[in-house]
Amino acid sequence: MNKYFVKVEVKLKPLVLDPQGKAVSSALNNLGYDEVTSTRIGKLIELNIEGDSEEKVKEAVTEMCNKLLANTVIEDFSIHITEEINA
Amino acid sequence: MNKYFVKVEVKLKPLVLDPQGKAVSSALNNLGYDEVTSTRIGKLIELNIEGDSEEKVKEAVTEMCNKLLANTVIEDFSIHITEEINA
Repeated sequence: MNKYFVKVEVKLKPLVLDPQGKAVSSALNNLGYDEVTSTRIGKLIELNIEGDSEEKVKEAVTEMCNKLLANTVIEDFSIHITEEINA
Repeated sequence: MNKYFVKVEVKLKPLVLDPQGKAVSSALNNLGYDEVTSTRIGKLIELNIEGDSEEKVKEAVTEMCNKLLANTVIEDFSIHITEEINA
């Protein structure tokens, strides 16, 4: 069993309105940062996971995203896996 | 003025407890994913921003993080900047 560090980015789909991002954008403009034209907010999920191979871990994490971590009706996700060196 | 796409990752500092991550971890274990040993949840903030150079944009976004986007008492942030090709 190897140890893997997995980073999952969950973002709203491009066509879905993001009121939280709009609010942050306005707040930044009000603070004087007029150069900010738009903002979108997503989730970053970091998992420590054990597995036999990167492919199997990717498969399992994709399943977790579809079942629990992301709402695939309105959200997209991307998965980045790094293997940790076994001590 | 160039256009930049900036990705900000805001994570709880390693020593700060993350109850939301713990809850997700237990939920995944309950779904049968026993290989997940720990989970931490952070925020992903994507900004579209105009600026003269990557350095100036990085400086401005660092300021935004300190003022608004992150709570630096309990959170760390990292900034990734990509320049967009001007049409």
